Amino acid sequence: MEKFLNPRSVVIVGAPRRSGEGSFNNVETMLRYGYSGRIYPVNPQAGEICGLRAYPSIAEVPERADLAVVSVGRDRVFPVLEACAAAGIGRVIVVTQGFSDADEHGRALQDRMSAFAREKGIRVLGPNTMGVVNNFASFTTSFVDLPVPEKFSPVSLVAQTGVFQVASIDFSYRNWGKGIDIGNSCDVDFVDALEYFEKDPETRVIAIHMEGIRRGRKFLEAASRITKKKPIVVLKTGRSEKGARAALSHSGSLVGEDAVYDAAFRKAGILRVRDTQELRTALRALVRFGEMAGPRIGIITVTGAGGIMAIDAAEGALTLAELPDGLSASLTEGLPDWIRVTNPVDIWPIGMIGGDYPGAVSKALRGLQGSPEVDGILMIIPAMSSPLHGNIASLVEVVKNVREGKGGGKPIALWLYADDLSVYEERYEEIENVAAFPSIEDAVRGLAFSRRYRQFADGPSVISETCSWNREKARPLIEKGRRDGVLLGEEALELLAAFGIPAAAGRVVPTREALGGLSRDLSYPVVLKVTGPSFLHKSEWGGVVTGIGDEGALLRAWDDLVSRVGEKNPDAVLEGLHLQEQLSGTELLMGMKRDPEFGPVVACGLGGIYTEIFRDVSREIAPLTREEAGDMLRSLRIYPILRGVRGQAGVDRELLVDILLRVSCLAMEIPDLMEMDINPFIAGPNRSKAADARFIWK
Amino acid sequence: MEKFLNPRSVVIVGAPRRSGEGSFNNVETMLRYGYSGRIYPVNPQAGEICGLRAYPSIAEVPERADLAVVSVGRDRVFPVLEACAAAGIGRVIVVTQGFSDADEHGRALQDRMSAFAREKGIRVLGPNTMGVVNNFASFTTSFVDLPVPEKFSPVSLVAQTGVFQVASIDFSYRNWGKGIDIGNSCDVDFVDALEYFEKDPETRVIAIHMEGIRRGRKFLEAASRITKKKPIVVLKTGRSEKGARAALSHSGSLVGEDAVYDAAFRKAGILRVRDTQELRTALRALVRFGEMAGPRIGIITVTGAGGIMAIDAAEGALTLAELPDGLSASLTEGLPDWIRVTNPVDIWPIGMIGGDYPGAVSKALRGLQGSPEVDGILMIIPAMSSPLHGNIASLVEVVKNVREGKGGGKPIALWLYADDLSVYEERYEEIENVAAFPSIEDAVRGLAFSRRYRQFADGPSVISETCSWNREKARPLIEKGRRDGVLLGEEALELLAAFGIPAAAGRVVPTREALGGLSRDLSYPVVLKVTGPSFLHKSEWGGVVTGIGDEGALLRAWDDLVSRVGEKNPDAVLEGLHLQEQLSGTELLMGMKRDPEFGPVVACGLGGIYTEIFRDVSREIAPLTREEAGDMLRSLRIYPILRGVRGQAGVDRELLVDILLRVSCLAMEIPDLMEMDINPFIAGPNRSKAADARFIWK
Repeated sequence: MEKFLNPRSVVIVGAPRRSGEGSFNNVETMLRYGYSGRIYPVNPQAGEICGLRAYPSIAEVPERADLAVVSVGRDRVFPVLEACAAAGIGRVIVVTQGFSDADEHGRALQDRMSAFAREKGIRVLGPNTMGVVNNFASFTTSFVDLPVPEKFSPVSLVAQTGVFQVASIDFSYRNWGKGIDIGNSCDVDFVDALEYFEKDPETRVIAIHMEGIRRGRKFLEAASRITKKKPIVVLKTGRSEKGARAALSHSGSLVGEDAVYDAAFRKAGILRVRDTQELRTALRALVRFGEMAGPRIGIITVTGAGGIMAIDAAEGALTLAELPDGLSASLTEGLPDWIRVTNPVDIWPIGMIGGDYPGAVSKALRGLQGSPEVDGILMIIPAMSSPLHGNIASLVEVVKNVREGKGGGKPIALWLYADDLSVYEERYEEIENVAAFPSIEDAVRGLAFSRRYRQFADGPSVISETCSWNREKARPLIEKGRRDGVLLGEEALELLAAFGIPAAAGRVVPTREALGGLSRDLSYPVVLKVTGPSFLHKSEWGGVVTGIGDEGALLRAWDDLVSRVGEKNPDAVLEGLHLQEQLSGTELLMGMKRDPEFGPVVACGLGGIYTEIFRDVSREIAPLTREEAGDMLRSLRIYPILRGVRGQAGVDRELLVDILLRVSCLAMEIPDLMEMDINPFIAGPNRSKAADARFIWK
Repeated sequence: MEKFLNPRSVVIVGAPRRSGEGSFNNVETMLRYGYSGRIYPVNPQAGEICGLRAYPSIAEVPERADLAVVSVGRDRVFPVLEACAAAGIGRVIVVTQGFSDADEHGRALQDRMSAFAREKGIRVLGPNTMGVVNNFASFTTSFVDLPVPEKFSPVSLVAQTGVFQVASIDFSYRNWGKGIDIGNSCDVDFVDALEYFEKDPETRVIAIHMEGIRRGRKFLEAASRITKKKPIVVLKTGRSEKGARAALSHSGSLVGEDAVYDAAFRKAGILRVRDTQELRTALRALVRFGEMAGPRIGIITVTGAGGIMAIDAAEGALTLAELPDGLSASLTEGLPDWIRVTNPVDIWPIGMIGGDYPGAVSKALRGLQGSPEVDGILMIIPAMSSPLHGNIASLVEVVKNVREGKGGGKPIALWLYADDLSVYEERYEEIENVAAFPSIEDAVRGLAFSRRYRQFADGPSVISETCSWNREKARPLIEKGRRDGVLLGEEALELLAAFGIPAAAGRVVPTREALGGLSRDLSYPVVLKVTGPSFLHKSEWGGVVTGIGDEGALLRAWDDLVSRVGEKNPDAVLEGLHLQEQLSGTELLMGMKRDPEFGPVVACGLGGIYTEIFRDVSREIAPLTREEAGDMLRSLRIYPILRGVRGQAGVDRELLVDILLRVSCLAMEIPDLMEMDINPFIAGPNRSKAADARFIWK
């Protein structure tokens, strides 16, 4: 990747002869950006472009350039690629649109490029890309005339669009340091870009704009490794759930595409932002702040109303720190006794009535910063241009001085308000671990991002658990499932059992006579249900009778079911009915779905009639660790019920964790299984078992 | 209020002798702000303040001033108020802190001021206020030196803090036109301020910062009337739910303080924003845009990625319009056939390959603007300073020209990006019904706010439904409830019946013998439960036996319950047990809670074990209209179950609407009832009845 971002020489194929307004001439924009390497325009119609000699063909360029940038019509791209290969150019950026972004013909052209690149060992960025920008080397391949930034940050961008480079000041914190637009990514993709930035010493934070992904599993591996060293922030766009609707199982429909991305980002320790405002906030925090050891914040504010707004914003993400001993007394010494100090510290009456506003801020900040109870600080302070408020400006010096004392590495998030923001923002941000945000809410979110990243980076590396199963018992069932496409009912429960997942005791009873023979020795209540691939949604039309209390009721249930089947589906061949012990407890759903990019995703949540209503489901990418399985349970809204609430006994949660690990095992060990549902899984105070299950291969 | 905001003369009591840096001298700041009326500083120690003659006392001021601004120590405020009254000054702003914001003594001082103001018929703003700003009259009472804004908008602010005036550019759209800080509102409050802005011709939009409220019912009345004419936007801060935890009923605990505010704002047609970013967005949209007739938007974008981000942001609030006939064909005429046009219209390939970017934008905009399928337009376009992209700048003229055509009144929300925003923002906003937002998400939200306001303003005025009830039957029960503080069990169900709410048939059976006598004639299954005020949470400890199928089981249930009561509460006097018909269906919760400010709030939602887990509850301020009652049901997540889902029959929703109206009636007609729960209310396909209820007076 280095030659893409920092080439010594570039061939530009398809640069227009014309330059100036409206020409989108990337020789001109490259020169204006300050590139100091050698540029070789290739254009058979031009003798010279922007004062540089133009060459009629790539073959005639006098050196083997590091990089070629191509923007010819889509049908002419492939021959250019061949010419690059022939000339020994190993890196090619294809700017041209109209490939997989357009139509089938475009996709075919693109596939041909991919194959050619692999075959020849050259790397292609694009097509449909603006290319790269590297402010450390004053280099860009953009055909839009990007302004040369006065400042840029150690944040590197990987995007699927050029707009993040054009709108650098809108999306980044003080402009990207480097940017790669992977476009349609026929060859260079997210994984390549991440692995480059992983080792790049000029990159401290990585930002991703993602619409979709290939090589998801590779991406997860790389990102999981990188986020231990550098934060990755992602803006994932395109939250359509169309994919989810086509799913065949409950687990499938509850694990929508966006939920899989969520799970994948969580697994890899990637911070996901909801929108561009959050993107800027997160980047500012991650660039400016070092570590934030815990979630406890101290707030200094000159406005009580602002303190309340900060508490609102912190809810659920950060907590209010205890004030250090003595701080309150020391701040209010000599003041009227109605002035009280809590967290948020309302500095206004203290500073005003005490007559020393900077002194009060200094004391409060020193107290919070030095306290072991405080992990981060929020300051709400004005920044005014008025000559009458010069004393407020001197707070920059106050903060600078306090930072030299104990705890000076803790993050300080500022909300500066009033009319002189940009000047003060720069002055405050000269102080280490201080960042100024455009609103109170952003300042709080900034601290929260900083904390979330630190939590991940400090956490253990993901190690998959070992997994054992009864291969002998499982193999014939898996083979049958593969053959039939599905495995249902009693056989599905047997396959679960082979993976150590407890299932309700039961059997398929072939005839009414056989049922009569059994009925005396059963321990009631029992359940009787139809079985077989013709009856996928059996509970919706009365194909399940529960709570059968005695022999008579059992035989009546048989007759009812047989007659209902006859009505519902007169052609169905009934091979018997499924007789099962009746379980009682909370109905859960457990299952897995194989995502085409990220691989198996395990789901668990509320089952029964409210499944689709509340969608109280947690999802994680397999393989799960024990910790993750526990988190899946704890993150459910129904977790209090599993724990036991209002005098009701809870359930054996360790057993549920075990079962989730076994679902994860099964998902990893049957690599062609597409979806699997245990629905319901009935969790009771004393025993928890699968009552019905479904495996889907195709 | 006019004299507060536009006085001809002002007395300033407690102005410091010192002026300049750090003095917070509000004579100086008033002069600097450009006030052209007469200022009379009052300070016995000063002969002159800021070049104005200072008076030793209010009595010596040579005219009866319109307004006094007071900032003396808190214990000296009341005498000043008396002096103002004696001097005939009818409007007083009390800047001083340390009243109900501080301690009990402060609260007592404040109460004395309130009483005095009422008695003398003078109006007091504050205490603990920065006072007012009125940019139409270059007037402010702020002791902070506010910069005089170059521009200000027709938005008036009512806040409970001064920071919204100091940080005018941070919170508003191009500065507030007028602002009132009601501080602790000992006299002038939200209602007064709203009613002033209602009639004020210089106010087109009203913004509120609210931490809490008194006179909530009056506020609702005023706001409901005003929002038919002018939008009101509120930022409600302080989302603590402490109040809710102390509630005695389920309805009480599910109707938290913040939920009541939500319901109140909805009832009054007030737009609530979540944070300061949304506040700015909403204000910009409401100032700039006229009406948006429907939710369908057309998008023109120069970046496909931006189009996807816009769709994400629109989800749930706005819909994508159908493209008008012929627009696609006309845009792609003469272009390669892989260029296709959908909504969002990706203008980049059309403009670039066609070689006429402004022409393509013009054509697309004219098409969308003129189409009856499109209610509003989003444009994503760059604003660059580069001389190479001057052609993009000319889009201002393009938009201006198209606006003169058909549909030119539809709102256009712009996201301008790149490096030359502020210049272009101003130029675009010279065009009517065009607003430029700082991000795609904000632009979409801006359109959504505009739409939401229009929906409310076009809706019917709220008219309460008539309400009839059986007073004769209800009166003794209400009297008993008032006496005992609660009404429970069979009596509570009887009171419901008096309001026309169907209840399960039942009776209290005094003895086991009496039960035996009845048992033969019952239609099983039945329910038996303990009753009386000692057993408020009876279902949690097994005080309810359901599904009793025959005589034997009924007598066993009696014995079980008696022995459980004995264990649980040996001193309880059991006056009998409550025998009831067993109902089947979906367990709902219905009820009411009287909010101290907004009055009765009706709640309904999911009952049973998941009540507290999912908190699937809707809440509305009583009295309800039939429309609102229907909306309450439709907004529940379990609504699909009420409608009937997956082969299950639904319930009689019209009956549920009737019952909600009756709950509303009951809440209005028993003015001292504090809380009421129907829990569970069992809604079945054929019949729906209350199974248990609880009325709480104290």
